[in-house]
Amino acid sequence: MEQVLTVPTVSTEARLEASPFLRACRGLPVPYTPVWLMRQAGRYMPQYRAVRARYSMLEMISTPELAAEVTLQPVRAFELDAAIIFADILPPLMGMGLKLDFVPGRGPVLENRLQRAYDIDLLATPPAEETILAKTLEAVRLVAAELTPRGIPLIGFAGAPFTLASYAIEGGGSKNYARVKALMYGEPAAWKRLMTKLVTVQVDYLLKQVEAGASALQVFDSWAGAALGREDYRRYVQPYSRMLFQQLERAGVPVINFSAGTAPYIADVASCGGDVIGVDWRMPLGWFRQRIGEGRSIQGNLDPVALLAPWRELKARIDEVLAEAGGRDGHIFNLGHGILPETPPENVRRLVEYVHARTMRGEAL
Amino acid sequence: MEQVLTVPTVSTEARLEASPFLRACRGLPVPYTPVWLMRQAGRYMPQYRAVRARYSMLEMISTPELAAEVTLQPVRAFELDAAIIFADILPPLMGMGLKLDFVPGRGPVLENRLQRAYDIDLLATPPAEETILAKTLEAVRLVAAELTPRGIPLIGFAGAPFTLASYAIEGGGSKNYARVKALMYGEPAAWKRLMTKLVTVQVDYLLKQVEAGASALQVFDSWAGAALGREDYRRYVQPYSRMLFQQLERAGVPVINFSAGTAPYIADVASCGGDVIGVDWRMPLGWFRQRIGEGRSIQGNLDPVALLAPWRELKARIDEVLAEAGGRDGHIFNLGHGILPETPPENVRRLVEYVHARTMRGEAL
Repeated sequence: MEQVLTVPTVSTEARLEASPFLRACRGLPVPYTPVWLMRQAGRYMPQYRAVRARYSMLEMISTPELAAEVTLQPVRAFELDAAIIFADILPPLMGMGLKLDFVPGRGPVLENRLQRAYDIDLLATPPAEETILAKTLEAVRLVAAELTPRGIPLIGFAGAPFTLASYAIEGGGSKNYARVKALMYGEPAAWKRLMTKLVTVQVDYLLKQVEAGASALQVFDSWAGAALGREDYRRYVQPYSRMLFQQLERAGVPVINFSAGTAPYIADVASCGGDVIGVDWRMPLGWFRQRIGEGRSIQGNLDPVALLAPWRELKARIDEVLAEAGGRDGHIFNLGHGILPETPPENVRRLVEYVHARTMRGEAL
Repeated sequence: MEQVLTVPTVSTEARLEASPFLRACRGLPVPYTPVWLMRQAGRYMPQYRAVRARYSMLEMISTPELAAEVTLQPVRAFELDAAIIFADILPPLMGMGLKLDFVPGRGPVLENRLQRAYDIDLLATPPAEETILAKTLEAVRLVAAELTPRGIPLIGFAGAPFTLASYAIEGGGSKNYARVKALMYGEPAAWKRLMTKLVTVQVDYLLKQVEAGASALQVFDSWAGAALGREDYRRYVQPYSRMLFQQLERAGVPVINFSAGTAPYIADVASCGGDVIGVDWRMPLGWFRQRIGEGRSIQGNLDPVALLAPWRELKARIDEVLAEAGGRDGHIFNLGHGILPETPPENVRRLVEYVHARTMRGEAL
């Protein structure tokens, strides 16, 4: 097992803890509302496309120097308050025994998708450092070594058990999630074994990212809302997501619980855990806040498509999100979903500057 | 302009009006809960696949005898309480000037999608009978001639303005609706002209279906919930959907307002109009009922994937829907989305029989 390469000194750690992002995660007063963007290391940046043109997705993920480079690009280009490690949610499935490929135009494909209960029993649960995830852990170390002294937090992440289970059973993207749901309904015991294995693997991976230098974690349940009604969520997902967040409490860093399409049952999602609830753009931020309850921070929720609109319209929509946040602490500005490849980088620059300027808390802090 | 071919006699009309489906649409007492299934004329039926193997989608839609045949197949095979005309939501766009093709494996594609405000101004708004929709109106006549004497209602349908606008601007299916939303945000005046034209065309088409013999109408806003947050829905969609439902009041038949993915703002959707609100499977029926309010019927909402589960599980889920409906009148049993091609027809038979048997109101009626 590899050792953590950089041990931050007390002063750099204190500096990190004073960052607006980490303070907002904890609901503490901040000088201004921090902002980062889901998928901020992505195709909308020419710098990213230049790297991507020369390497495949899997090469980028599994070459720590490349992953570190693209992780740092948006932090160099914009005044973002946090970085998020460049990686993908699917590689943990490779360590478990699935063959992952990124097919141009089709997205990720798992050749040997799970078809029977038996396939689930064959899945391994190796520790992250013995799989391709070791490369991401190394990338976390490289990025943390650069950002920690500058007081910029690095977010580690992983997919929630349901979203990973969907990919593993559907074999890739899905329109109606018929395969994963048919297995859930038809073979509940096998479903339980699968979800339990995924919790094991994901908790290990997330904790190792913290050991490697991540200052916060985000768990993405990107597909739960598209696939599941509330009763299914409660029955087949909530017990495992709850287990995951409970086991992450010992990480000692803030954990963000993000999901999409779950507005009608966001209270059930929030009850699984997490210091921060990341919400999508489908309902106003205040609406979510009401349902999530007090005592937790909230992250979101500009519609990513707003970044394609003229500045006047984009500005009005940023103002709406900020008004919904009510100038209160415990808000991290973000999109309600990943940034789109066709986004003009100039709009990202203006967004970040505007959020900071507009939320500056004055001399009080 | 063609004439309506069959003029139902008073007695056949009275018989239709006594059908459980039409009574449930109006919230009147029924002998048992009526049931039909969205996309019930579809690929899950071997009879349908036999026709589909010999004709393209567009041939089936534009050949009244074929459309009538596949419309009748499920009503012959199962004890369904209504038929829905076999058609597609996109042909109205052909009459307006868009070139539609169904590409195997890719779904519908519009070659000359709307790209500029100027393209919108070139769109025509011809009456249905002067376009390919005449073929669907003829199919409605053929089916009504067969079903009306037997007291089985035929449902006519069309897409809601937003869903059609999405297709017209995206050029086909879409992942994030970036094009349609960028136009909405960036060119609100052009958006208004487009939506107004779509209301004109769809109202005409729906009213003509009633003239041709449809006993009820369903308007599908399949994409609103996937594409839009509540504020966008209110600003860019609601005024036009409201206009549409208002203009349909003179049809004199019940109108079903169906949408998917709109649970968090279902009250806004319902406020557009419709005698019946059709809801998806994401939340329990009673949850929707609370937000829709009294005085309207509700249609739904079994998850279509439940039809792939073993009977024990499927039965439990049907029971859940019926329990949520609370044995009250004003409920039409349906799926929360279209039936899946991989559904075993045997499960459809059992579902229909079970809903009827389970909801039989006894001798009181």
